[in-house]
Amino acid sequence: MSSIFAKFSGTASALGGLIESGGRNPFGVVIEKVVSSTVGVIENRETLLFGTNNYLGLSQSQNAVKAAQDAAAKYGVGTTGSRIANGTQSLHRQLEVQIASHFNRRDAMVFSTGYQANLGIISALAGKEDYLLLDADSHASIYDGSRLSTAQVIRFRHNDPDDLHKRLKRLEGTPGAKLVVVEGIYSMTGNIAPVAEFAAVKRETDSYLLVDEAHSFGVIGENGLGVAEAAGVEKDVDFIAGTFSKSLGTVGGYCVSDHPEMDLIRVNCRPYMFTASLPPEVIAATMTALDEMKAHPELRTQLMDNAKRLHGGLHRIGLNASKQVSPVVAVTLETLGQAITMWNRLLEEGVYVNLSLPPATPDNRPLLRCSVMATHTPAQIDKALEVFASVARECSVLS
Amino acid sequence: MSSIFAKFSGTASALGGLIESGGRNPFGVVIEKVVSSTVGVIENRETLLFGTNNYLGLSQSQNAVKAAQDAAAKYGVGTTGSRIANGTQSLHRQLEVQIASHFNRRDAMVFSTGYQANLGIISALAGKEDYLLLDADSHASIYDGSRLSTAQVIRFRHNDPDDLHKRLKRLEGTPGAKLVVVEGIYSMTGNIAPVAEFAAVKRETDSYLLVDEAHSFGVIGENGLGVAEAAGVEKDVDFIAGTFSKSLGTVGGYCVSDHPEMDLIRVNCRPYMFTASLPPEVIAATMTALDEMKAHPELRTQLMDNAKRLHGGLHRIGLNASKQVSPVVAVTLETLGQAITMWNRLLEEGVYVNLSLPPATPDNRPLLRCSVMATHTPAQIDKALEVFASVARECSVLS
Repeated sequence: MSSIFAKFSGTASALGGLIESGGRNPFGVVIEKVVSSTVGVIENRETLLFGTNNYLGLSQSQNAVKAAQDAAAKYGVGTTGSRIANGTQSLHRQLEVQIASHFNRRDAMVFSTGYQANLGIISALAGKEDYLLLDADSHASIYDGSRLSTAQVIRFRHNDPDDLHKRLKRLEGTPGAKLVVVEGIYSMTGNIAPVAEFAAVKRETDSYLLVDEAHSFGVIGENGLGVAEAAGVEKDVDFIAGTFSKSLGTVGGYCVSDHPEMDLIRVNCRPYMFTASLPPEVIAATMTALDEMKAHPELRTQLMDNAKRLHGGLHRIGLNASKQVSPVVAVTLETLGQAITMWNRLLEEGVYVNLSLPPATPDNRPLLRCSVMATHTPAQIDKALEVFASVARECSVLS
Repeated sequence: MSSIFAKFSGTASALGGLIESGGRNPFGVVIEKVVSSTVGVIENRETLLFGTNNYLGLSQSQNAVKAAQDAAAKYGVGTTGSRIANGTQSLHRQLEVQIASHFNRRDAMVFSTGYQANLGIISALAGKEDYLLLDADSHASIYDGSRLSTAQVIRFRHNDPDDLHKRLKRLEGTPGAKLVVVEGIYSMTGNIAPVAEFAAVKRETDSYLLVDEAHSFGVIGENGLGVAEAAGVEKDVDFIAGTFSKSLGTVGGYCVSDHPEMDLIRVNCRPYMFTASLPPEVIAATMTALDEMKAHPELRTQLMDNAKRLHGGLHRIGLNASKQVSPVVAVTLETLGQAITMWNRLLEEGVYVNLSLPPATPDNRPLLRCSVMATHTPAQIDKALEVFASVARECSVLS
């Protein structure tokens, strides 16, 4: 019998090596206790969390907690059904209306996860005759959506509108629609998409534009709507996809659009139709988190102040950190060994960040992905920077 | 510009026709109020729910509600991270230990949705060299998982071990593993897989067997573990996949196995790695629902008594209902018009069931999918049968 697990032999030795060299599985971290949005207990130690997506700290909003509790009491802990069957309660529609109105769009679809939002909207829209143009550094959910679709997939160079333009020009005259997919802020590097330039390409080539604002919603733009708002090109964006599991602190995904065909997408979208809808307590917590985001624009100011402090600090101590300022700051290292040792030592010194290894990293070098929250205090950021500096010297990353 | 929506023109006219003939969108039902597990308010009317997956009624368990409330207070309303980064709290591991122990298996993986459990486990396991053998009536999540995988996909006739055997025999001597995927109870028809026969084919052909017990977990088997337990062939099943959104009443998915490679699958499974984990309140509610399921085996007895009552009753009034007894009973109709009119009239008379239309139905005829819960009273079932009989006469389905 051919072992179905033979394909994992490379993974087995790589993971074994990782565990041996650092003493722990970097993909097996357990948060034993939640102390606050910025502090968790890991391995019995209070640890500063600098590797989450909890940008506004809303996972710990007491109002969202209260809303979840009330909804569980009133509606129970689940719907047991898909959105197109018994899984749409009034709350689900209310959240869709609220999200659409927040983005000033005609309609919104709410999905059970952000992953399923990308999977669903991309696979429903891009048919056999169509072309999907994807940024080369796209998130797994976008690539997986493109695999589920029947469209031809074309990748263009990361954040490169000229390369996109060239590839779209080659398709001139071909039948079928062209759907361009970019992200607002890239989750691993903090790179921000030049969405004004992408919008210009979209207009010139008569294509459709989908922007995944997963890591930019609640983060940038005058009303926190993301990169399209910040760049003043919302009107050019046909579909905005996003998630509730970053700045809103819950779980789930959405897609908003002005196109009147959203109700047709609902019945043509397998990852929307063939999955149980979100439990009422998650929907209620999300609605309240969205209210909080709206009522507290100062959270975004604090977030960007903190982003500047972390970003500036990592550069100042001499690390190879992301160029652009955003809540995600990646520290690029030259060798796997450095990355693994630094990640382990940071954790042992009470700073949790994300370890990202090739081939999953954009330029095939290992990354320590750091992220900042509105709720971090300047002292917490300074403490993390201090630990970063001392661990980097210890690991000979800095002299 | 080619309209990306042109592909939906067929859907648009079909959906328009549905709405026109019945006065409402059958895929747009909203449950306005949850009265109990068996009664919801739809269109301002108290309606008997006979089209959910809430087999044990646990979505309304007061203990699960309390657990969700406590967890939200203690841990917040979300993790904002993936299971392999900051999204594993102690609760997530505890649930995995509890699920594995419940099934008496070595390990369990918990996914954010049941859809993603099938997507993830199938796409991670079935590689380029491998063969996926799928029952022709498989759920969308199984087909979508097979599209994400790089394996060659072979379909065999629904619930037909001989046809599977024949197809596996043809593959004899080919390199690569063979993974057979079947469901325990089929969600639309209530058909039960002949899993003892499938297990025999698996043994003879040295293939792997994955059983999706989504609709059978908590429903059949001495301990409610599903069709594999009921057939006495648990040892032959390599992977059991399932969901929390049916008999447990919450949301999420799982896969249990005795194979020691589960930790390798965790880091090779995109729908597990690249999605936010379930919020603590959902995990806590699920753990409590599982305790309740275990503590109250009489729920399964009630469920099967109710299944017999509904199944027998639909046959007695002369409808073309499922052959096998299970909590899912499908009523097959001859024409689309009959199905649509009956579905609308049932709803207007206070009975909610699911409308399932070709080409999504197994034999290309429309279905009214009915499902029963442990918490239905005999009087509720009798009332539903009475409405079924009168509406069927009114629509000339019965004379």
